[in-house]
Amino acid sequence: MSKKQVTKAQTITAPKERIEKDLLGERSLPVDVYYGVQTLRATENFNITSICVGDFPALVKALAMVKKACALANKKLNLLENNKAEAITQACDEVISGKFDNQFVVDMIQGGAGTSTNMNANEVIANRALEILGHEKGCYDIISPNNHVNLSQSTNDVYPTALRLALIMSTPELYESIALLGYQCKQKAVEFSSVIKMGRTQLQDAVPMTLGQEFEAYYATLKEDLDMLKAVTDNFREINLGATAIGTGINTDPEYSSLVIEELCWIADIHFIRATNLIEATSDMGAFITLSSMLKRTAIKVSKMCNDLRLMSSGPRAGLNEINLPAMQPGSSIMPGKVNPVIPEVVNQVAYEVIGNDLAITMAAEAGQLQLNVMEPVIAFNLLRSIKFLTNAFNALATRCISGITANEEHCKSMVYNSIGIVTAINPYLGYEVSTRIAKEALATGENIINLIKRDGLLTEKQLADILNPENMTQPRRQFSSDKK
Amino acid sequence: MSKKQVTKAQTITAPKERIEKDLLGERSLPVDVYYGVQTLRATENFNITSICVGDFPALVKALAMVKKACALANKKLNLLENNKAEAITQACDEVISGKFDNQFVVDMIQGGAGTSTNMNANEVIANRALEILGHEKGCYDIISPNNHVNLSQSTNDVYPTALRLALIMSTPELYESIALLGYQCKQKAVEFSSVIKMGRTQLQDAVPMTLGQEFEAYYATLKEDLDMLKAVTDNFREINLGATAIGTGINTDPEYSSLVIEELCWIADIHFIRATNLIEATSDMGAFITLSSMLKRTAIKVSKMCNDLRLMSSGPRAGLNEINLPAMQPGSSIMPGKVNPVIPEVVNQVAYEVIGNDLAITMAAEAGQLQLNVMEPVIAFNLLRSIKFLTNAFNALATRCISGITANEEHCKSMVYNSIGIVTAINPYLGYEVSTRIAKEALATGENIINLIKRDGLLTEKQLADILNPENMTQPRRQFSSDKK
Amino acid sequence: MSKKQVTKAQTITAPKERIEKDLLGERSLPVDVYYGVQTLRATENFNITSICVGDFPALVKALAMVKKACALANKKLNLLENNKAEAITQACDEVISGKFDNQFVVDMIQGGAGTSTNMNANEVIANRALEILGHEKGCYDIISPNNHVNLSQSTNDVYPTALRLALIMSTPELYESIALLGYQCKQKAVEFSSVIKMGRTQLQDAVPMTLGQEFEAYYATLKEDLDMLKAVTDNFREINLGATAIGTGINTDPEYSSLVIEELCWIADIHFIRATNLIEATSDMGAFITLSSMLKRTAIKVSKMCNDLRLMSSGPRAGLNEINLPAMQPGSSIMPGKVNPVIPEVVNQVAYEVIGNDLAITMAAEAGQLQLNVMEPVIAFNLLRSIKFLTNAFNALATRCISGITANEEHCKSMVYNSIGIVTAINPYLGYEVSTRIAKEALATGENIINLIKRDGLLTEKQLADILNPENMTQPRRQFSSDKK
Amino acid sequence: MSKKQVTKAQTITAPKERIEKDLLGERSLPVDVYYGVQTLRATENFNITSICVGDFPALVKALAMVKKACALANKKLNLLENNKAEAITQACDEVISGKFDNQFVVDMIQGGAGTSTNMNANEVIANRALEILGHEKGCYDIISPNNHVNLSQSTNDVYPTALRLALIMSTPELYESIALLGYQCKQKAVEFSSVIKMGRTQLQDAVPMTLGQEFEAYYATLKEDLDMLKAVTDNFREINLGATAIGTGINTDPEYSSLVIEELCWIADIHFIRATNLIEATSDMGAFITLSSMLKRTAIKVSKMCNDLRLMSSGPRAGLNEINLPAMQPGSSIMPGKVNPVIPEVVNQVAYEVIGNDLAITMAAEAGQLQLNVMEPVIAFNLLRSIKFLTNAFNALATRCISGITANEEHCKSMVYNSIGIVTAINPYLGYEVSTRIAKEALATGENIINLIKRDGLLTEKQLADILNPENMTQPRRQFSSDKK
Repeated sequence: MSKKQVTKAQTITAPKERIEKDLLGERSLPVDVYYGVQTLRATENFNITSICVGDFPALVKALAMVKKACALANKKLNLLENNKAEAITQACDEVISGKFDNQFVVDMIQGGAGTSTNMNANEVIANRALEILGHEKGCYDIISPNNHVNLSQSTNDVYPTALRLALIMSTPELYESIALLGYQCKQKAVEFSSVIKMGRTQLQDAVPMTLGQEFEAYYATLKEDLDMLKAVTDNFREINLGATAIGTGINTDPEYSSLVIEELCWIADIHFIRATNLIEATSDMGAFITLSSMLKRTAIKVSKMCNDLRLMSSGPRAGLNEINLPAMQPGSSIMPGKVNPVIPEVVNQVAYEVIGNDLAITMAAEAGQLQLNVMEPVIAFNLLRSIKFLTNAFNALATRCISGITANEEHCKSMVYNSIGIVTAINPYLGYEVSTRIAKEALATGENIINLIKRDGLLTEKQLADILNPENMTQPRRQFSSDKK
Repeated sequence: MSKKQVTKAQTITAPKERIEKDLLGERSLPVDVYYGVQTLRATENFNITSICVGDFPALVKALAMVKKACALANKKLNLLENNKAEAITQACDEVISGKFDNQFVVDMIQGGAGTSTNMNANEVIANRALEILGHEKGCYDIISPNNHVNLSQSTNDVYPTALRLALIMSTPELYESIALLGYQCKQKAVEFSSVIKMGRTQLQDAVPMTLGQEFEAYYATLKEDLDMLKAVTDNFREINLGATAIGTGINTDPEYSSLVIEELCWIADIHFIRATNLIEATSDMGAFITLSSMLKRTAIKVSKMCNDLRLMSSGPRAGLNEINLPAMQPGSSIMPGKVNPVIPEVVNQVAYEVIGNDLAITMAAEAGQLQLNVMEPVIAFNLLRSIKFLTNAFNALATRCISGITANEEHCKSMVYNSIGIVTAINPYLGYEVSTRIAKEALATGENIINLIKRDGLLTEKQLADILNPENMTQPRRQFSSDKK
Repeated sequence: MSKKQVTKAQTITAPKERIEKDLLGERSLPVDVYYGVQTLRATENFNITSICVGDFPALVKALAMVKKACALANKKLNLLENNKAEAITQACDEVISGKFDNQFVVDMIQGGAGTSTNMNANEVIANRALEILGHEKGCYDIISPNNHVNLSQSTNDVYPTALRLALIMSTPELYESIALLGYQCKQKAVEFSSVIKMGRTQLQDAVPMTLGQEFEAYYATLKEDLDMLKAVTDNFREINLGATAIGTGINTDPEYSSLVIEELCWIADIHFIRATNLIEATSDMGAFITLSSMLKRTAIKVSKMCNDLRLMSSGPRAGLNEINLPAMQPGSSIMPGKVNPVIPEVVNQVAYEVIGNDLAITMAAEAGQLQLNVMEPVIAFNLLRSIKFLTNAFNALATRCISGITANEEHCKSMVYNSIGIVTAINPYLGYEVSTRIAKEALATGENIINLIKRDGLLTEKQLADILNPENMTQPRRQFSSDKK
Repeated sequence: MSKKQVTKAQTITAPKERIEKDLLGERSLPVDVYYGVQTLRATENFNITSICVGDFPALVKALAMVKKACALANKKLNLLENNKAEAITQACDEVISGKFDNQFVVDMIQGGAGTSTNMNANEVIANRALEILGHEKGCYDIISPNNHVNLSQSTNDVYPTALRLALIMSTPELYESIALLGYQCKQKAVEFSSVIKMGRTQLQDAVPMTLGQEFEAYYATLKEDLDMLKAVTDNFREINLGATAIGTGINTDPEYSSLVIEELCWIADIHFIRATNLIEATSDMGAFITLSSMLKRTAIKVSKMCNDLRLMSSGPRAGLNEINLPAMQPGSSIMPGKVNPVIPEVVNQVAYEVIGNDLAITMAAEAGQLQLNVMEPVIAFNLLRSIKFLTNAFNALATRCISGITANEEHCKSMVYNSIGIVTAINPYLGYEVSTRIAKEALATGENIINLIKRDGLLTEKQLADILNPENMTQPRRQFSSDKK
């Protein structure tokens, strides 16, 4: 939901206002919003994309989980009174449940290295905790967004930690979409295992293969990427919580960092570990770069796959016409009966988008300076978008395209046996020079290679049948005679 | 507004359904939605970004203007009956007014080269025209999205034309934001025209300049880009309307193309011209690439400017501290009193986003095949996003940052006169060797260059005063003596 | 030529050494090299790419032209004695002639914003001028690289000016290659003007066109780009010579800037103009960004063209097989008779390289800080590489591919008349519903559309002949009857 | 060495010519060159970059190792006669030794998916083997580049395998350069462990840290990347040798693939494994993408480090001036005494180049079609360039910059104790509100924070001394009193 809509809705339903103040002065807010003055300023300062933190529920949830862990650690260290800690914890749980998503109204792209996102969380949690304790929203002398909710924290450790957690929580849906895509490819690999077709290199007819082998290769490449993606995401378990402003842990208790990370492990049910060097970890964007690179890699592979699908289904008459993609919608308003490969096409475009996102992340990562990378919000924005877009695209490709593909088996087969490329299979028996002569004649006259070999009596029918047996052509085999160099 | 919201709203208010059918079969739709079966399928096929055509009102408006022009041309050629043409025209006018934006529910990233966007327009216009004529929605035998609204058209000429028109209508806001940014820089150039400061090359102290000169340079660079941007956008007046499927104009009357473009000129009040080669124009993405490159260029320049602002305002004590950016929000929850350059920071991130968008556009443009570039929707999406983001970012930078900048004049001045770089101004009078010796001594001892020159009696007080006059140091001047090589 | 080779050659022939010194101390150099101690240090500091300034003769030539202009202007202003000015001028002329290219040994990618390139020029010219005056190399008290050759100059105005001049001198070869490529496309457009073929959108059979129209579209797009490229290059006539260190013109005579630019106009026979704002011009990379964007645009277009050529020549049996590319080399060691589209393939790769170069330029341009963009050398490197690679690639494509293309006219034609897409041409006469029914039947049965129409008596032979006349299908036409909506 | 030079040299020393022929006809070659007719054609077809295969000796070596493994496997399978196999093996050993590098004259960027590189190797090895057996070069009926040297092979398995091996052999130099860079950072971390300085976030003064901590963070980040880089390179042990044309292993003996990989393990002393799915492996570019991404990641990190070094050494008077980089060359011809951070600057530019290379690789990887990625040569070119450039850049940075850095310890310290940011350390004792008031007063008046606290008697001298002890400010600590919320 966009900020504008939220604000408008509230204007209608909120005749009463409350006053809050910060370093820069006083501002009034609708009495029923949970965010506060700093969030309000941020929505005014950053009015860029119409896409706000609340549009990514996993990030909201992750922020609240981190805040909860901090409250519990502060309580254990007697830095936070019990009743306040409990109210904050309960407020966090409610945010985790998703019911305050629409209160996270700051733009995803923002200055301040995520401070506004952090303060949005601090304010929403403080105000909800105040309510829980029976106070009005805004009574920050009782529970303060800064002094209590943000206690022992800095944006510079909370925001990157929450982002890591959000990514860990967002990727399983992507894993599932890749697994589903792989599964559908595998199904087709089995279904098409005996469909013989021309393999092509450089778009030129090369040597035979089965259509099943082609889909098996897609399956294999997806499986490999899925494993790598999981390994890459696993790096996000290394966090810098407790680093505070620049990684020196200033203003934290020596025990705090271990405690808070332990709490977060329990809350999120993830085995987090503390980064070895907190100063490095605070400005380092390495794990984000690597995830983006990995998403780019998978995008490249699936884009190539979609290019193939579009090529193989080209036609129906003046193209390769090896396979048929299921028709998902009429293809043209002007050309009756035309059906287009719309699903692969949209997946291609998502791949370009992900590659573009990777560049934005690259530039942002390079722009870090000294003890902080202030460009982290645009990194968060692009990673979360890439994950979402790829997940949607892969699900569509699996269920709306691959699963319904059919093969034009006879056409595929006839292209093999009418091809010139088939001469390669015969090459070991006739030698390179004779094969080349035959190939040239076939090309010039339009004649069939097999007929030419028969005409010249170069091989017996039985020999030819053996050589041209699909199984023999699509895997290594020992030659039946040994008249070679 | 997202598709989900639209659908939900309609579910509540629309108990009754109507049935539509297409090539693939029947589907039921809420009776009060204006889009039809093809749009419905498209929302199911392309569920990628949550951002739909209706989120870009200029594109909706442009589509309706094109449709109106086509209806009028078809009417003139007697291809469309008067009453139908009039109903379609009126429906188009209503869409142009913005009241049907929420009926444009297909995802911006879509397969089919924009066919779904085109059909969404065709269906909304057809159904509204039916209502105008007193019919139920869905009575396509009377007014058909394909046969009447889309008459003499193909997605492949309508969609690119509408996109061009949408870009022409979207860029003036961007122009204004650049002009405003330039204006604010110019204001500061005047205000700071006598603030002398160190110029820096390679981040090393170089030679003096005024802070006014610095802002004047920003103004100059923005002005140049604004002129170029206008010139680049002007290319979009060249359109391929009438090209239909592949540019051959198949199924159009020989007079149609001229007629429809003339109508569009009147409707949009823009002087469109027909592309010289309609086949080239149908698949060519050149003008889009050039606009994206231009947006990237301006983004790069303003990003560099923001980097400068952040450098010059670094501190307040352990940085350059030449200028103060206005405080827009508290900078830190952990560090009291800290104020951050949040506006330049968000502009930097927008620049990275625009550069990433340019890459997505680059890949999409390269992926065109044969008679069409099917990746045009992702090009449209990224161009419109880049324009929107830059407009918002530049407005924020102008009004929330540049306009409130103040200079630390004394500090700037003292850095000049305590600098070693000032020796460059004296170099012509003392020669390179003596100057280098003085510079080295100053660097080693921390001593002031001017004091060293006085100590050694190398120049008189009057000579020094003349040389070191700010005006003399910040522009070319004839040397007062001629003891040089 | 690489630095290593130069050095080695000189080691062999130069038993004697000379000593030079600079700020950092003394170094010995082979007595016969023309470069000096600063160049020597630069080759040690920047040992990155093995590609040096001398590998781009246009850049060497441009540097010497700028140095000559400066010497003449300094002479006119009596800042440089006549005999020294004349020796320097003559030395510059010799460098311009190309005979000292192998003395420009610094790496193209270098720190210092081009200072090392500038000093390499200063040293070579100073030493050659010394020889001309009858002195030993290295007698810098007589003619100094800094005090005399570099008089009134800074790297920060000389290097960007020389780069602009080098680009102006390098692009005509690129223009010619584009013109040649366009010419060859035009030739084919004429040659294939009556070859009818299927036009394809989304790789699906669409409607007929001629192969000539396809090549005409390539011609049109190249012509447009050539014109734009010339316009873009023309921007380089705006230079900042006289700006010195940061654009304030410090240490120059007020008349100097005009004088030196006038001299450069005469020397290079190019109408240079002074940038309006020299401070802006000194750090601005706008013109370089725009050239790189333009090169990217042309690369994208030609890459798309090469993708098309590879698609259209796919086969020979199991592909589209519309055209034949000339065989330039055997295609495979394992597959007899296979010939590959190697020239389009190499052009595609050059396009990717140019797009990658554009990104390096983008990042470098964004990284400018304050009064200088210190990353200019990598911008120079990538622009000059892109120009060189594209020129070579386009020449190869024109002369080794396009010029030898032949069409498989009969196959192209039979694909049209056996297509389902042909129904589009018939659609206006039969209506969308009947057309769709026929198309569906043809697709299901493999039957020919024309036969089905004849079978059902839907149109007369004469009508069909008229509709299916190639000329009528490949351009707009008035329908012969008016039975439509 | 460039092709042109080779050719010229040979023209001089080779009066006699020999004739070779291929599919396309006869060509004469200088009698003493080892490459043959197909290489000659390739040099004519691909005259793009002036950089040839021989410029990357690791690739030449890897090709010859693969060819040797193939010869040995063919011998074991009785596919190749003993004496021929031995001559080929010996020829391969000579190529491995580097003495034929200058015979690998084809351009690195080439069409044909590497066929020309493969044929260049086949021809050089065949001709050298012929010499070994006492024959003239060119007697291909005895030893043929195709039938014998290339036996059981296709470019499509040989070229990717050789590239993988070349990358495995090229990366150790890069590892060493990263290790050296890390080592130098670690040395500085120890040396500067007690230099206290301001940490900065968003270029604004934040909280104190030591300069040692800063360099320790660089060390930590490099160490992490080194480990990851090694892991990524390890993937190249998975090869597709034996896959032949498209991965089906057509025309190979069923035992061949295992045998040849085993031979290659012995020759290269690397534990290669066969890809699980040879069809997938033949067109898959995943491992190359991942290496390029990893190189990009390290480039980004080191670029950020260089940005930091340039910032920290800015000045000497009007900048941060925390550290001094060693002077490597005079910085300016116009500004006496100026020394520039030329080494970090060149490293930044190399990073941009590597990021640009990654994009070229991305596009090439996405452009694969069906059973092959024909764009592999441009991938090879860019990976090998990136490795070379980074290795050179990191070595320069380690030995010509980091190792000589000195700290301005007193200046660093005084910036801390004069800072406003120091109030953060005091915040837990005074509370956020009082701290903010003090910070504001200090900022407005220029007064010292510590003095203000003393003036107001807010803390005792002893308390202040304890809080402001550098050790206490640069790590977590328990607060000495508990007057907090």
